[in-house]
Amino acid sequence: MLLGPGDDAAVVAAQDGRVVVSTDLLVEGRHFRLDWSTAYDIGRKAAAQNLADIAAMGARPTALVVGLGMPADTALSWVDGLTEGLRDECALVGASVAGGDLASADFVVLGVTALGSLDGAAPVTRAGARPGQVVAVAGHLGYSAAGLALLLATDSGSEQAAARGSERSGRPLAEGSPWASSSARVSTALEEVVSAHRRPRPPYACGPEAARLGASAMMDVSDGLLQDLGHIAGASGVRIVLDPRAFAVDEPVALAAKEVGADPMDWVLAGGEDHALVAVFPEGVRLPPHWTVVGRVETGEGVTVTERDIRVGGWDHFRG
Amino acid sequence: MLLGPGDDAAVVAAQDGRVVVSTDLLVEGRHFRLDWSTAYDIGRKAAAQNLADIAAMGARPTALVVGLGMPADTALSWVDGLTEGLRDECALVGASVAGGDLASADFVVLGVTALGSLDGAAPVTRAGARPGQVVAVAGHLGYSAAGLALLLATDSGSEQAAARGSERSGRPLAEGSPWASSSARVSTALEEVVSAHRRPRPPYACGPEAARLGASAMMDVSDGLLQDLGHIAGASGVRIVLDPRAFAVDEPVALAAKEVGADPMDWVLAGGEDHALVAVFPEGVRLPPHWTVVGRVETGEGVTVTERDIRVGGWDHFRG
Repeated sequence: MLLGPGDDAAVVAAQDGRVVVSTDLLVEGRHFRLDWSTAYDIGRKAAAQNLADIAAMGARPTALVVGLGMPADTALSWVDGLTEGLRDECALVGASVAGGDLASADFVVLGVTALGSLDGAAPVTRAGARPGQVVAVAGHLGYSAAGLALLLATDSGSEQAAARGSERSGRPLAEGSPWASSSARVSTALEEVVSAHRRPRPPYACGPEAARLGASAMMDVSDGLLQDLGHIAGASGVRIVLDPRAFAVDEPVALAAKEVGADPMDWVLAGGEDHALVAVFPEGVRLPPHWTVVGRVETGEGVTVTERDIRVGGWDHFRG
Repeated sequence: MLLGPGDDAAVVAAQDGRVVVSTDLLVEGRHFRLDWSTAYDIGRKAAAQNLADIAAMGARPTALVVGLGMPADTALSWVDGLTEGLRDECALVGASVAGGDLASADFVVLGVTALGSLDGAAPVTRAGARPGQVVAVAGHLGYSAAGLALLLATDSGSEQAAARGSERSGRPLAEGSPWASSSARVSTALEEVVSAHRRPRPPYACGPEAARLGASAMMDVSDGLLQDLGHIAGASGVRIVLDPRAFAVDEPVALAAKEVGADPMDWVLAGGEDHALVAVFPEGVRLPPHWTVVGRVETGEGVTVTERDIRVGGWDHFRG
């Protein structure tokens, strides 16, 4: 950041003569709930999902600018919490909050724009996947969807109404979770996926790494793996075939699924908001262990999951 | 623009290794009214106020990214109109709409971020004004405030309610203005300031020009000349003294003031949203005719208007 907040505009370094830019609009009640997440968590998540878009181009995030709309009676401590969350998430990747704008609104709304640098590399788009290449994932899958399912399972109209009354003023509801009586191991696992829903952990460094490893296409998983791979398949004019046996269902996700009686593979394949990175690499590429090959590119169109039987067998079938 | 919409992020050229960035959040009912402005006008204005922030740094706007939140029943034609407005305003300066995000919201909200290039020049901040330098303005002053005053004068609860019923679906109310019976000359003038309120015309090229002419400080006039110069005075640690006789009150503004019984100098000095550029130049600078010297920088603090008597005398006093 060459010139920070406080002027009409900020000035950010873009050493290789290009800047990567992505924007998101986040609306209270649609993208976050004030009774489920603290201001700090909302800041972390708002930053994370934009910074992940930059990483998904193979770029390194450099700066964030944020427009914040909120009711006039919003507590200053809430704004401070949000700002701290934005700043801390940026700090994970060496980026800065370069500027912002405050506006009055009937509910909280965030306009977040992230900038990034390709550091001389070519951007990795959605359109470069070719038949014969392999599909690999880095980061978490299914955690955020599992956390959302647990939050929804514990949500009630009265709790929500009570929380709305104290919104923007304090911490969200934490007591009374149905899993409070579970074993410590289960409780810890369930807290982990709820925490992942509130504050995703995108594998930022894997974006530029994928570019260096020759990735031909990449996205961050924001809407669910199947849907996002559908965009790559469409833009590249190819068919993507996933092998469900290649996915490891992490224990916290599996335990959450057991808790609410869900199939964890649904969350792994269709859950959004973890902002894992999914990339397509040349056949024969040697990938570091944090990348898991989960499928391959073929001629054709669309996304297929081999041997996937969503209701019969369930996820244990694929682990055994 | 090196890579446009349709991927996780866009890639924009930043030839000199830096990018200027500014963001604004615009909320229905606060920053625009759907019964006063068409979608096209809202797009033009939303783009203009961000592009003007870039120009106010001495930079050339290169790209815009936009997050749009709106109710699910918003007409597609409304979105098309907005997009067209954003694009046409960008086209005035050779910039492009590089990307966007759509979200569901209870009302229309826009998160607009503009990028720009300094093309090798140093950014012109608010902090460089020095005693002995001169203050000059390029662009319109008082037009938008005059237009707002006319719109408010013709606004009634019932009209507003009726318009809310048809919002996002068609053109705003145009009939029934109290000045419809005025002479053609007056009507044209009044329409001009209303149009200026809906669609400001910032003097974009004057930003980089001011930088080339050695401007030591600059802002765009978004909140009113006195208030915005107060930011320059504060950031620079100087006092700014304006000479009200130096201001030309344009005829449309004068006629609008007469229509509603206002002092047009109030609008010129305190009206916002015209996005004129106000800059501080070294003493003795030779300025092109579209720059008007309106004051000087002294030691001290704050902003003073010499011989200004807001209520006694009025604007005619300063023209005679």
